[in-house]
Amino acid sequence: MNSIYNRCSVRKFKQKSLEKSEISQILKAAFCAPSARNAQPWYFIVTEDKEKLKELSDFSPYAKLLADATLGIVVCADTDCNPSLDYCQQDCAAATQNMLIEAKELNIGSCWLGGYPNEDRVQMLKTYFKLPENIVPLWMVAFGYPDQEEEPKDKYKESKVRYE
Amino acid sequence: MNSIYNRCSVRKFKQKSLEKSEISQILKAAFCAPSARNAQPWYFIVTEDKEKLKELSDFSPYAKLLADATLGIVVCADTDCNPSLDYCQQDCAAATQNMLIEAKELNIGSCWLGGYPNEDRVQMLKTYFKLPENIVPLWMVAFGYPDQEEEPKDKYKESKVRYE
Repeated sequence: MNSIYNRCSVRKFKQKSLEKSEISQILKAAFCAPSARNAQPWYFIVTEDKEKLKELSDFSPYAKLLADATLGIVVCADTDCNPSLDYCQQDCAAATQNMLIEAKELNIGSCWLGGYPNEDRVQMLKTYFKLPENIVPLWMVAFGYPDQEEEPKDKYKESKVRYE
Repeated sequence: MNSIYNRCSVRKFKQKSLEKSEISQILKAAFCAPSARNAQPWYFIVTEDKEKLKELSDFSPYAKLLADATLGIVVCADTDCNPSLDYCQQDCAAATQNMLIEAKELNIGSCWLGGYPNEDRVQMLKTYFKLPENIVPLWMVAFGYPDQEEEPKDKYKESKVRYE
């Protein structure tokens, strides 16, 4: 599918707000992911506030581009739903990938910004949003209309597939 | 996108082999996922061998349906690419979700079968395929043409979204 094959990380965004319906479609896509024992161990913090996006761009040395984004989503694990942070990571990553693809489908660019297991990054987000014990911020995603050429690379490597 | 919203786990499959081009498209989709530092820490073991699928259906108490599938893919971490099994899980889960969606796009059903961090399941797969130290089997996915009604549920929950 084109949106899977042509997606790539976008790091420069137009300064134009996304439509509410687009944000809603991206979020709805996240919830369509499968999860271990259907625990749905995810929680999403959504902000379009430019001041907050600027502050959040400090959560990691690789998150500067958040200041330029028009939407930021913090993907969190909810350990009340599944106490295993391994399964939470797997399920939340599937949900995140759905968001990236749905965004691409809507011609919206995105960039996944790594967090967990880096303690500093997790702690910064936990403190910033005053999160309860069971909500563990795993990573963020920056979104916005792309203001750059998108050049998806062909990363397929036959050496990484073994036929049995 | 329809393939994101309408996908659900499929557990009954027709006994008809997938086309080679379909298997190739599913695998290619996996490689399109993003990964931390673009490490691409994944490795895929692919089998259509019904005898092997039957044997592999013992890798977990929830994997019986593999015996009925016509394609099984073991998704592995390659810790030579990224030594962190946390990042490997995140990246491999994104790659897996791409496969599930691409399969749906091709009207192929799929079911993600949990493995890591369950030591028994990981060990069974490691032993079965005589995997080297750096290749850690994380989970499997069963594929095949669906032989059941697909009834995706609406799992969206407003209580799991916080606006800031």
